[in-house]
Amino acid sequence: MSFVLQATDELARAGTLLTAHGAVDTPAFMPVGTQAAVKTLLPDDLRACDARMILANAYHCYLRPGAATIAAAGGIHAFMAWDRPILTDSGGFQVFSLAQFSRVDDGGYHFASHVDGSRHTFTPESVVELQEALGADVAMVLDDCAAGGVDFGSARESAVRTLRWADRSQAAKRKKNQLLFAIVQGSTFDDLRRSSARDLAALDFPGYGIGGLWVGESKDAGAAMVRAACEELPQSKPRYLMGVGTPEDLIRCIALGVDMFDCVYPTRCARHGLALTMRGPLNLRNARFGTDFTPLDEDCDCPACTQFTRAYLGHCFRANEAIGPRLVSMHNVGFLMRLMRGARHAIENRRFQQWSQTRLALWRAP
Amino acid sequence: MSFVLQATDELARAGTLLTAHGAVDTPAFMPVGTQAAVKTLLPDDLRACDARMILANAYHCYLRPGAATIAAAGGIHAFMAWDRPILTDSGGFQVFSLAQFSRVDDGGYHFASHVDGSRHTFTPESVVELQEALGADVAMVLDDCAAGGVDFGSARESAVRTLRWADRSQAAKRKKNQLLFAIVQGSTFDDLRRSSARDLAALDFPGYGIGGLWVGESKDAGAAMVRAACEELPQSKPRYLMGVGTPEDLIRCIALGVDMFDCVYPTRCARHGLALTMRGPLNLRNARFGTDFTPLDEDCDCPACTQFTRAYLGHCFRANEAIGPRLVSMHNVGFLMRLMRGARHAIENRRFQQWSQTRLALWRAP
Repeated sequence: MSFVLQATDELARAGTLLTAHGAVDTPAFMPVGTQAAVKTLLPDDLRACDARMILANAYHCYLRPGAATIAAAGGIHAFMAWDRPILTDSGGFQVFSLAQFSRVDDGGYHFASHVDGSRHTFTPESVVELQEALGADVAMVLDDCAAGGVDFGSARESAVRTLRWADRSQAAKRKKNQLLFAIVQGSTFDDLRRSSARDLAALDFPGYGIGGLWVGESKDAGAAMVRAACEELPQSKPRYLMGVGTPEDLIRCIALGVDMFDCVYPTRCARHGLALTMRGPLNLRNARFGTDFTPLDEDCDCPACTQFTRAYLGHCFRANEAIGPRLVSMHNVGFLMRLMRGARHAIENRRFQQWSQTRLALWRAP
Repeated sequence: MSFVLQATDELARAGTLLTAHGAVDTPAFMPVGTQAAVKTLLPDDLRACDARMILANAYHCYLRPGAATIAAAGGIHAFMAWDRPILTDSGGFQVFSLAQFSRVDDGGYHFASHVDGSRHTFTPESVVELQEALGADVAMVLDDCAAGGVDFGSARESAVRTLRWADRSQAAKRKKNQLLFAIVQGSTFDDLRRSSARDLAALDFPGYGIGGLWVGESKDAGAAMVRAACEELPQSKPRYLMGVGTPEDLIRCIALGVDMFDCVYPTRCARHGLALTMRGPLNLRNARFGTDFTPLDEDCDCPACTQFTRAYLGHCFRANEAIGPRLVSMHNVGFLMRLMRGARHAIENRRFQQWSQTRLALWRAP
């Protein structure tokens, strides 16, 4: 038993994921620590934000510093000094999007490192072994990501390959205290998404990623695919929408039955001076904040909001001071953690629709 | 009374500087927050490092965000959320080193902003007014910095102008709770340094900067000038060697009678992956630390040393993760604060020479 579903409100769900490094209430948003480091934030900061589970990337960790180094450190938790749960993405999407000269066949991915051009191969089996060496609490199977806008034939090919790879991944699994999630593919084709979800569900994984979305298709098309996948996936297993997203996307997809998310959005926004607030993102570089000596968000108890003003934060961005991105990353991650707690509370009290409509109306009309 | 001399050991001194935002034990090293922000560090971090007094730069604050903004925020302490003492440098050195098309005459500096090319003039009076608007605890007079290696005539001209400007600065001073320090010039000419120090001493400032050194001359030549200036300056006033320096420089100049220092050294080193230790700087990018799972410094209680390994810190630098410079900045600033406490303790116990020889031998022979 690795997931307990505690409450539902229409399609929205509140549950708890149980991992080797503790429990994670869902809906959950995982801040991204691609290279075994969340950009600008220390573990102490993430705990202060109430982050429970973070994501690291197997592809990046494999290339630098290497799985052997992380294993020798005692695993990724010890290496990066994070004692709460960690999910590692398998690297399929990163090979697809970052690596050079990548080629996929039934065996796996053949690619050149984006760091130094060295040649590598990822197979479903090697990626399971890699993530077991890293010691993640949740590992993801290697998946074949179809490019956005591919035709039905290519999308089917990638979904079928992802299914065969999921089967091989399950067979390769050795470690007991690591959950291995499969990944639903099928591009934007409803019947492919449904058959991918059904076929993977039959393999009885402890959880399911939904991949290959939010890569250029319309938000409505993406949401339709999330709905289709969630309808076919088992109620008793967690669903994780990979690489999503904005507060609006999170609220919309929680309503469709998604339990887990990850995205670089809060930390990437922060590096560009965008602070998340109930009333939409606020661009701190904007000249009108130059003499605004009010807090970024009066209701927030993060250091950016309690110790500094909009004027000072804006100054840090204009002057290219590193504490600007750091402070706003703290704020943005904390904002999404509060959003997730709010969503959970609303689901538990069966008023998710009202809560989400209020939040979306505020977000969209700053 | 703004300075109390509590102990001496040969030329070395232990004292306390009294400011509007509290007392600062000397010898003191001021971390540099050029643009009203210490690079990568928050006020909470600086307090955790036991930093007592920091430096900000009047030239930078004047150009961005502007004195009016900082005054409207309630002064530089409120603006940057630092409630301990702040010294502002006058900007003479920055105009000299950073500004474009700068020209100096008896009136002051005429220059173009390095940020946007706009034209500005700094006079001794305007710079006093600027620093009063910023609200620093210690302000510095505008000085005329001679370039390194100038001839005697040019060096004399800059020292004489700096003296005349110091007189004008004193006359322009209005604010009671701000200390205004003069600056000794004279390039590397012993008699110019001595006359500059003597003439400024006669004007009875509450403290004295020693400027225009560590700009390319030999360390021995620089040290000789520090010694000459300290011999001429009053015992009862603090001496502040501007822009210095490394642990070796600090120890050497404390021995000559200097009380205060500032330098970007600890934070700039940190951005390049250089961590300060008793046994010299350690380059964390070095491949030999790639699998070194020991702490950076076993005797240090900073987050970098208590939570992470050399392997992880090195990874952060190789992977260009912002927490690398941040963690090492914490460590390096903390290291210099400990060095200053150690120096003070040694002076109080009249064993400074022994202490400094031990420290220098360790530092030089890693």
